[in-house]
Order: sequence, then C-alpha cells, then structure tokens
Amino acid sequence: MRPSGRKFDQLREVSIETGFSHHAEGSALIRMGRTEVLCTASVEGKVPGFMRGQGEGWVTAEYGMLPRATHTRGDREAARGKQSGRTQEIQRLIGRSLRAVVDRKLMGEITITLDCDVLNADGGTRCASITGAYVALCLAVKKLREKNVLKVNPVIGQVAAVSCGIYQGVPVLDLDYVEDSAADADANFILTGAGGIIEIQATAEKATFDDAAFAALLALARSGTAQLFAAQSAALQG
Amino acid sequence: MRPSGRKFDQLREVSIETGFSHHAEGSALIRMGRTEVLCTASVEGKVPGFMRGQGEGWVTAEYGMLPRATHTRGDREAARGKQSGRTQEIQRLIGRSLRAVVDRKLMGEITITLDCDVLNADGGTRCASITGAYVALCLAVKKLREKNVLKVNPVIGQVAAVSCGIYQGVPVLDLDYVEDSAADADANFILTGAGGIIEIQATAEKATFDDAAFAALLALARSGTAQLFAAQSAALQG
Amino acid sequence: MRPSGRKFDQLREVSIETGFSHHAEGSALIRMGRTEVLCTASVEGKVPGFMRGQGEGWVTAEYGMLPRATHTRGDREAARGKQSGRTQEIQRLIGRSLRAVVDRKLMGEITITLDCDVLNADGGTRCASITGAYVALCLAVKKLREKNVLKVNPVIGQVAAVSCGIYQGVPVLDLDYVEDSAADADANFILTGAGGIIEIQATAEKATFDDAAFAALLALARSGTAQLFAAQSAALQG
Amino acid sequence: MRPSGRKFDQLREVSIETGFSHHAEGSALIRMGRTEVLCTASVEGKVPGFMRGQGEGWVTAEYGMLPRATHTRGDREAARGKQSGRTQEIQRLIGRSLRAVVDRKLMGEITITLDCDVLNADGGTRCASITGAYVALCLAVKKLREKNVLKVNPVIGQVAAVSCGIYQGVPVLDLDYVEDSAADADANFILTGAGGIIEIQATAEKATFDDAAFAALLALARSGTAQLFAAQSAALQG
Amino acid sequence: MRPSGRKFDQLREVSIETGFSHHAEGSALIRMGRTEVLCTASVEGKVPGFMRGQGEGWVTAEYGMLPRATHTRGDREAARGKQSGRTQEIQRLIGRSLRAVVDRKLMGEITITLDCDVLNADGGTRCASITGAYVALCLAVKKLREKNVLKVNPVIGQVAAVSCGIYQGVPVLDLDYVEDSAADADANFILTGAGGIIEIQATAEKATFDDAAFAALLALARSGTAQLFAAQSAALQG
Amino acid sequence: MRPSGRKFDQLREVSIETGFSHHAEGSALIRMGRTEVLCTASVEGKVPGFMRGQGEGWVTAEYGMLPRATHTRGDREAARGKQSGRTQEIQRLIGRSLRAVVDRKLMGEITITLDCDVLNADGGTRCASITGAYVALCLAVKKLREKNVLKVNPVIGQVAAVSCGIYQGVPVLDLDYVEDSAADADANFILTGAGGIIEIQATAEKATFDDAAFAALLALARSGTAQLFAAQSAALQG
Repeated sequence: MRPSGRKFDQLREVSIETGFSHHAEGSALIRMGRTEVLCTASVEGKVPGFMRGQGEGWVTAEYGMLPRATHTRGDREAARGKQSGRTQEIQRLIGRSLRAVVDRKLMGEITITLDCDVLNADGGTRCASITGAYVALCLAVKKLREKNVLKVNPVIGQVAAVSCGIYQGVPVLDLDYVEDSAADADANFILTGAGGIIEIQATAEKATFDDAAFAALLALARSGTAQLFAAQSAALQG
Repeated sequence: MRPSGRKFDQLREVSIETGFSHHAEGSALIRMGRTEVLCTASVEGKVPGFMRGQGEGWVTAEYGMLPRATHTRGDREAARGKQSGRTQEIQRLIGRSLRAVVDRKLMGEITITLDCDVLNADGGTRCASITGAYVALCLAVKKLREKNVLKVNPVIGQVAAVSCGIYQGVPVLDLDYVEDSAADADANFILTGAGGIIEIQATAEKATFDDAAFAALLALARSGTAQLFAAQSAALQG
Repeated sequence: MRPSGRKFDQLREVSIETGFSHHAEGSALIRMGRTEVLCTASVEGKVPGFMRGQGEGWVTAEYGMLPRATHTRGDREAARGKQSGRTQEIQRLIGRSLRAVVDRKLMGEITITLDCDVLNADGGTRCASITGAYVALCLAVKKLREKNVLKVNPVIGQVAAVSCGIYQGVPVLDLDYVEDSAADADANFILTGAGGIIEIQATAEKATFDDAAFAALLALARSGTAQLFAAQSAALQG
Repeated sequence: MRPSGRKFDQLREVSIETGFSHHAEGSALIRMGRTEVLCTASVEGKVPGFMRGQGEGWVTAEYGMLPRATHTRGDREAARGKQSGRTQEIQRLIGRSLRAVVDRKLMGEITITLDCDVLNADGGTRCASITGAYVALCLAVKKLREKNVLKVNPVIGQVAAVSCGIYQGVPVLDLDYVEDSAADADANFILTGAGGIIEIQATAEKATFDDAAFAALLALARSGTAQLFAAQSAALQG
Repeated sequence: MRPSGRKFDQLREVSIETGFSHHAEGSALIRMGRTEVLCTASVEGKVPGFMRGQGEGWVTAEYGMLPRATHTRGDREAARGKQSGRTQEIQRLIGRSLRAVVDRKLMGEITITLDCDVLNADGGTRCASITGAYVALCLAVKKLREKNVLKVNPVIGQVAAVSCGIYQGVPVLDLDYVEDSAADADANFILTGAGGIIEIQATAEKATFDDAAFAALLALARSGTAQLFAAQSAALQG
Repeated sequence: MRPSGRKFDQLREVSIETGFSHHAEGSALIRMGRTEVLCTASVEGKVPGFMRGQGEGWVTAEYGMLPRATHTRGDREAARGKQSGRTQEIQRLIGRSLRAVVDRKLMGEITITLDCDVLNADGGTRCASITGAYVALCLAVKKLREKNVLKVNPVIGQVAAVSCGIYQGVPVLDLDYVEDSAADADANFILTGAGGIIEIQATAEKATFDDAAFAALLALARSGTAQLFAAQSAALQG
C-alpha cells in the first residue's frame, strides 16, 4: 500500500497551467500532486562565447527552490553564495534533456534559457521541471515563429520525465517525498515521445537491484510518460 | 493621465491569498496589479548566535526575485554567487519593518524568517513584500499560539507599505513599473495601523522636490495604507 | 541634556581639510567631531559597459571603514570576502546623492569614483561621507577644467547631508555614536544648497514617530546643512 | 573499427599500483590505458556535524583533475574559486557508490575520505576513480583492523565501474577520450561483485537509443567489471 | 643621482605620530617621505581556535591599501571579494615579524591584531607597516600593563624594517616608488634592535646580483634601521 | 645528528623523471627524498590582457598540493573556494624565479604556464617546484623550437632552488619536514647556474640569526644547487 493510496502504476494528478509568468516568452506552472514548479522560457538574441560564430543556437536551464518549498526551510542559495552540487546536477540534466529534442542548427544564434523554480516540493521536482520546461520551450518557440524570428520549428521531439522506484520491494511509478525518502532504489527516466531514451539515472539508495527490477521500472516509466506527453499536448493546445 | 488609466490617488487592485505554500507556518501570495510576491513565514526554535541567552526572539527577512519576474531575464543571484546591493537593502528593510511591530520579548528564543519571493514584478515589490509578510507573520503566530508555543501575541501593531511618486509633476499613489521608471521622485512609506511612521525612504530620481511635494506624498501614502490594512485584515479573517 | 553637552540644534565641530591624498584628483578629509572620513575623487577616462556610447559620464562611490575605526575592531571586509549589506547600502546612497547634483551630459564619457574611507567613526559616517565627497568631487572637476578636459562645470548644485534623531523624546541635530545607539528614531537628510530634497531616510529604531516629529527633524536638518554648505564653500575657497 | 584498434568488448590495459601515497592510510594509482587517477583514503576520527551521535561512520569522496591532465590546460579550480558542476557531480557519484558497499553501522564514528585526483586523463576518469577508490578504501580498512580500530570489516561488497557507449552505431566497452567525444550515447555502470546494480547513468549525446541498445551496454559492462573485480583483488592480494 | 636627490645611504624623512586612532589600544601613523601608513593595535581577550588551551597569546596582522593611495586608483579588495596574493604575502610577513619579538607565553590567551592601512603609497609600504606596527604594539602592551592585564612585558625585542635596492648599479637605502619601479634588485630587511636578522627577502627584478652586492644592501639596512629604532623610541617616549 | 642520518651538507636523493604527463608540452616529476612534485609546462598562443600588444611573452606558475600529500589530510583548496596565502606566495615565487632566466622579448606573444602539483610532501616543496619547473620549461621550449614557433631559445640561464636552515644550532642543507618543523631558522635560495642570486627568503622561526650564520647557509645553498644543476642537465640530456 502506497502512503498516498495510489496504485503502483498510478501517476499523481498532473496539471500544466500556461501563462503564469507575465513577461516570459513561454511559461508553464506544472503541478504533480503537491509538487509545483514554475518553468519559464526566456529568449536572448545571442549565444554564449563558446558558441559564437557557428550559426547554432543554445538551450540551457537553471533550477532553484524557494527556501520554504520544503518541509523545513532550506538556506537560500543566493545568500549562501553558491549553488549546491545537487542544484547544479539538476540544472545540467534539464538542459541536456531539452537540447536532446532541439535541432540547434535550426535556431540561429539565439539562446533560450529555461528557469525551473520549485514553489512547492513533494518529490520528483527534477522530472516535473523537465516536463514543464518542454511546454515553456514550445510556447517560446511558437512566439518566435509568429514573429518570424524562426522560420522552422527547431523542436524535433517531445520530452517528458518521471521517477520510479522500488518501495517496500515493489516497483512503483512517480514517487512522492514520503516514498522517495524510504525507497530502496529510485530512477529518473527522461524519454521521448517517439520511444527513445534520453537519459536514465538509476541509483540504489538502500539496496542494490537486479536487471529484472530495472526492467520493471523502465516499463512503469513508459506508461507514466505516455500520460505526461498527453498532458503537455493538451496544455499546448489550450 | 496615468499610463494605467488610474486616478492619482488610486491603488492597483490588491489581493492576498493565504496558504499558497504547503509547508510554511504562514504564507501569503500578495498581488498588487501585476506585481505578485509569495511571502512565507518559517519558524525555527532558536535564535542567531548574537541573540542567544537573552530570552528574546528574532524576526528577519530574505528577498529574492525569480530570474524572469522582470521584462528581461535577470541573472540568478545564486548562480552569480552573491546577492546584489539592491536585494540586501530590500531584505534589511523588510526585516526592520516587521520587527517594528513585534515585541520580541514576548516571543521567547525562536526565529521567524519571512521569505519574500517575487514571482512577477511590475513595480512596488518591496512594499508588496512588507504588506504580504505581515499576513504571513500573523498566520505563523496564530499557529504558534494554537500549539501553545506562544502564550501571548507578540505582534503589537499592524504594518503596511506603499510607494508614491511624482509623475509628470503630479504626486501619485502606488507606482507601477512604467511610472516608476519615469518618475521625478519616489518614496516608500512604511506605516502602522495606529498612524505611526516606521520608515520613509524618499529619493529624487530626476528632480529634487520640496516640502510641499513631500507632504502630498505622505498624505497619499496614508490613504493607500488604509486600504492595505483592510485587505490584510480581510485575508486574516478569511 | 545631550551626552556631549551640545544644544539640541548644535552641529559637532566641522573641519574639511583638502589635499590629504597625494595622488587623487581631489580629496577631502572631513571631521565632524570625532568622526573622520577621507574622501577622494578619482578620474578615469571611460565609463562602465552599460553606459558606453551614450556620451554621458558616470559618478559612483565606494565606502569602507578601517577595521579599528570603531570601538571594537570589526572584520576587514576584504578578508571576509564580501562587503556587508550596510556597506553596499551606504555606497549606493553616496553615489545617488552626488549624481543628483551633476549633469552627466556635460561630463563626456569619463567616470569619477568617490572613495569614502572612515578613519575614525563616532556616528554619522554616511552623512559626513556625502558632505566630504562633494568637496573632493569639486576639486577633481576643477582640475579637469584647468586641463580643459571639461569645457563647462557639470556640478550643477551643492549637496550636504546630516543626521537628526529623536533622543529621549527630543528632536536633536547631528547624532554622535552614543546618541545614535539610544535614539528612538533617526533620519538622514540629503539636501541641496537650493533647498531641494535629494533623499530622506527616516527610521523608527525604538518607537514609531508622527508627522510633527518628522517636521521637526527636517527643520533641524535644514539648519545643519546650511552650516555644512558654508564649510564646504570655505574649504573649496581655501 | 575503434580508433585504438581494440575489439568492441575489450577493456584498456588496467593496472592498479598500491602505496603511491606516502602518508595516506590507503592509496591506489589506477591506470586504464592512458587515464591515470591517484586515489587515497584518509581516516579521521570523527564524523561531520549532521552525523554526530548516531554511532555510524561516514564515507565521502572528493575529485579533482590536475590542470594539465587534459589535452589543453584547464583552469585550476582552486584558482577560479569554485568547483565546476561536473566536478561536484562526479564526487557525489563516487561517494554514493562507495557508501553502497559499506555498512556504516560497523564503522563507529569515523570518516573515510576518498580523494581521486586525475594525473592524466583519457576518458573514463569517474569510473576509474570508483574502481581505484575501492582499493584505497580496502587498504585503509585493513590498516584500521590491524590497529584494532575496527573490530569487523565494514566493507560488505565489491564495487567497480566502467563506461560503455554507442560508437558509430556499435555498442563498445570502456570508451577512451576520442570515442567518448564522438559517441552517440554513453553510459556509466557502477556494479557490485555480487551482480547488483548500484548506479546507472545513461545519456544520449548525439542520438537517443532504445531498450535493446541499452541492454547491450549493460551486458558489456558486466563483462568489463568482471575483469576490474579481478584486478582489484589482485592488487589487494599483492 | 637618486630621483629624490637623496644620498645613496639616506633615509626619507621619518615621522611617527601616535594616537591618531581614537579607539585602538595603540596606534601609530608612520610617514616615510610620502608613504603614510596608519597602524593600529587591537586587543581581544581570546585566541584563535588552533591556539586555545595552550596558555599562550597570539599576534597577527592585516594589511590594506586605500583604493586611491596609489597613482592610479586600484580596485577595492572588499569589492572584488578577495585579497590579492600581494596583500596576503605582506600581512603574513608583518605578523611573523612582530611575533619574532614577542614572547607569547607571557601574554596569556589574548590576541593582538595589528592593522596596517596605507593612506598614501610611495614605495616601502610593507617596511613602514612593520616599523609602525611595532610602535602600535608597544602602546597597546603599555595600556594592558597599566590595567594589569599583563604582569610582565611580552615584547622582548625591537623590530624595524627597511628596503634597499640596486638602482642604476648602485646599492641605495629606502627606495621610493620611482626607484623601486626601476631597480635591478630590491630587498626587504627586518632586523632587531639587538642586531639579529628576522627576515630577509631579496629579489632580482631586472638583473641577478652577487654576494658582494647583497652584503652592501645588508650594511645599508643596518644603518637605516638604526635610525628607525631611534624614531620608534622617540615616539614611544613622547 | 640529522634525523635522516644525512650529513649537514648532504642533499636528499634527487631524481627528475621527464614525460610523466601525456599531454603537457613539457613535464618533470621531481623527487627530493620523499617529496614529489609533478611540474608541467603548458603553452598558450596568447598573453594576458595586461601584456597584449607589447610583443613579449609571459611565464607564470600555479602551485597546488593534493589533499593527502601531507601527514594529515588538508582541505582541498578548490572545495574551500580559495587558495591560501601560502599557496599564492609560493606560486608567485615560482613564477618570478622562472621569469628571471627567460628573456621574454624572445618569446613572442605566447604564455607558458608552469603547474607544480605536490603528490607527496616531505619539506622543501617550493624549492623542488622551481627546480622541476625549470626542466619542464626547457622541454616545452625545445618542442616549440622544433616546431619553429620559437626561432631562438628564450631561456637565458639555469635556475634551481634549495632550502637550508639552522637545525639544533647547526647550518644544514635541504631540510626535510621533521627538520623544517624544528629549525631555528630557514632560508630558501633561488640561484642561477652562473652564480647569480635570484631570490633569498630567510626567516627566523624560533630564533634570530646573525650575519655569519646567514653566510653559512648561502654557502650550503651554492653547494646544493650545483648538484641540482647537474641533475637538471642530466634529465634534459636523457
């Protein structure tokens, strides 16, 4: 029995609200249960120094958590003067995942920055960030195409992410905080709409796992992301 | 004529939504027009080192702005590795303003931290932060009294803040971003429900001003904060 | 009775010594009682990046305190690796105040940096910094005009600053450290020779105050700055 | 054809030299082809603050690269004043991987820090670090058992790591730098001697991949780590 | 011919003014020609962590330069967020030099911090700092003995410092900035009143030098420090 | 009797192994007894900003110590976020020493960076760094001449360094860690093959010393560096 009463293969309730940010070229407030992440896409008409003159664009991400998004207040990273290793790991992952579905040659020398800020945290914030950032990215691209800054759509795939884990010996989909804290193992799957794997991060937390367990997690992830792809499409339709 | 069409003495639409944060002891999402600030109050059962052993509590504040709360994306302070002078100035002001209505001797050795994070910015974020933080503080105190951590209410006054400015030669109430950018002078007034002055910060931006102009700004501020006190009370009633 | 024996409307003894710095284009060592601040003006033939190509100049300020300018030794900010919020607040204030009396369009693309370093502190260091920095600025401008770098004088007003406060219920002029530590409220007034207000920062420290008290502080400030304007003029004459 | 002429399932030449460090409780200089990492284990008789009083030990890791371990000289992280996101990601991974084979309840309140410093880099430095750190850890534990600081062996499993990737469409074992730079996808596998999975990090670099490709990579990794377990055992025997 | 017209073995005019700092336990404003350094000694009733419980005292130093002490304005180290290598080298030297004439066992667990802040720089600031800091230290010790905090005098020797150099092939005493910039070699000598050597730092700037040249520099230094010892004694008498 | 059994004028066993680094233009692993330093020379085809356009080259150095090069593990400077004063002092010294034997006008606008990383420390690491860096520099220059990047050899002298000290009243050559910790005084001599002095740093640690003692140390240094010059030449021959 999962603490939330969900079935082993049941996602939390998902909602994606667009337009929360007044200024961003694209924005999506994604909620997966009590996890809420505000994702914005910001466009800048140049690329970082190491990219200049190649005629390609750049897509990058930053991640943050409001100090009281969590059960007990965390230090504000701006006040501590540095981002934690965890924060950097997550924002590098978000950036890589989005770049995997963008053909940067089609962008020209512009940068799109995806900011994922966690307003409320209840597990799975990095996966929610990726799923929401995809929507913000598509909205920004849509605006750039309307303005004719982009002639063609550089977004060449759909990406969503979900965590799975082994909780009390059972593979389950979409861990919330309580499950995540007690899981034997957890894994984040970043998958494409076309069935490809972009990234897998699987970690034994309390016990190592075998190939069969891993296969079960991957199957759950495919089922979970199918629902997330639908939610993204609905939000972009809306 | 103000760009927004408001009258010279007209506040923007104000709303204060409580409970936005799932974990904080108190929270208020304040909206003044298109400016939106999430204020949370977090309680910790100890005080900073310099306060220890005196039997008094501490109230402090931190302030931040999401990178894309603004027209063009700003650097993430956590990524840059330090808070700007502006950020520090604002969070020091919020902390001072709230402490002015708290009798810290009645708190015991606990700390209440007010985090004010700007989700959307359209001028007046520091004033909105103070007005919203007061509500978050009261909610946290209410919870502490229900749990009997506090025997009496240490909040001994009501505080709200509003900006005024001289725009095209005319004193006006509650500047939005467009007005703020073009104002000859602006001033932030932090006032108490009992009519006292907690803090005044008046600055000539484009032109110095005289005593009469200053008096007009103060009068506008008193009228504006009267409405904010009512909005706070309604939110706390709700 | 004030601890120093001064009357409620009496400034501390003021002296402004020019030329203390051997290298600076302009320098003034200002003493207000036992508060001593060395103000230097340094000229550089370019402006910061965000100002380039606009044909205007820039005026900015930095503030520091020697570690043992105070009763007990303070940390050296260079050793701690960052400037405190207080330091940043003060240097932003000094910069704004001086820019308010300069027509930067008349400067061309040069920068004048005002360094205000407190050698001995006894209250009122930010006000003394502004009053002294004005003298250093004028001396540097004089030198630039002699060298024909500047065709006209870009300094279009005179600025001085003084603190006032409510000490044991009585409004008094020019707080020293002992008074400042015990004041109910204090206020810094930055005023022009022509009677204009550049900046007011009034703060309730121990008790809020009302409009009448504020008016009394402003009147004291006008009387105090009149004397400071005379001292500046004498120093520049000398 | 692999650039190095190796077969698709062939490891680079592996050597593990113990005792390179004169002072460390355990040390291993691991070479995988032209990648060389010096791993040291240092014992300290206490645990970090967040672990104190629980009677458990702590195992952690730090990772660094000499500035000229690479083709072109990289910035020295100590000089830049911060560790890169990549560095932090790697050292967190090494620490997690080693903790997965240690029963920290059997350690008492001591800390073992594994420093992995890359002297020469030619791809696969994080995997070599984990494989080498295991040997350094075992040597340190052996010394602690000889001194009777540890009554029982807290190392309850064997861990080694290897990278695999899809290079020109073919799954290959143990990427060197040239292959790594051109691979469609790569994956790091951290496996136990008993066949368990500790961590998988699989990333699409140039193209997404499917389940069959992933299975092929995992099979290669199992074959590669079998050889690494043997090399570790031989080094510890020696 | 020296640029200043001095003879090869002639010191610049030296003056040491005590009591410039109002708050410090001891202070000396030392002037060697146009080089001016304010040295203060601050007493704190405890020692740093690594010294605690040994019954000995600690003497340490910090060094700084006002941004416009030099010909062109230098960055403020507090604003840059770190002390330069040069600054750290100098303050370590000052601390070592003073500790060499103090028997710290006679101090008890107190710390004396010597702050040396350069108000005007014209070469030789590190030597002037040491010579001035000695006076500030003695004044602080005198005050501590008057208060009976110290039973005996822990200052067991006299220390002064002077730079010498080879300028246009000729060994000269007490380089000013113009000479220092053009010297073939320079050397700082920190010597005791009893004729002992505390520290020598000799550096070939434009040309290496031989043993005879070195001997000539040392002889000049002995003659220079003899005059500095007298100036220190006079200042302490006064 | 020296702890190591060496005679007062006996160097530790010296070896210099070239080519340890696979990528560097020049590298030398120098061992003096149990002190081991890896020195690499890296060439970059440009000079720092302050040197540009002068047609001269630049030679600089960085120094580091692996955390467990020492008896007890030291903090990793990259993790602490800054280099210690000691580190900066040493790397400035290494850079100065090497520049003293290079005619930078003969280099063109290229930079050679010498990285000296201590793998094992047993006293004398800064001297070993200088002696080893000379070899790495010569190897890099040789490669640049082979490629015809350099037409003539800019290395115009030979440099080596050795420490001496007064140990139990006796001047001795080449202190190891045990001697260094207990020495009354120590001195580092950086000398040229032609008999010139580049730098002397002599410091009284436990007792001041006189001219005769200093002369004895210098004589020992000349004898020690003679052997180091031979070892360098042999390594470069090899």
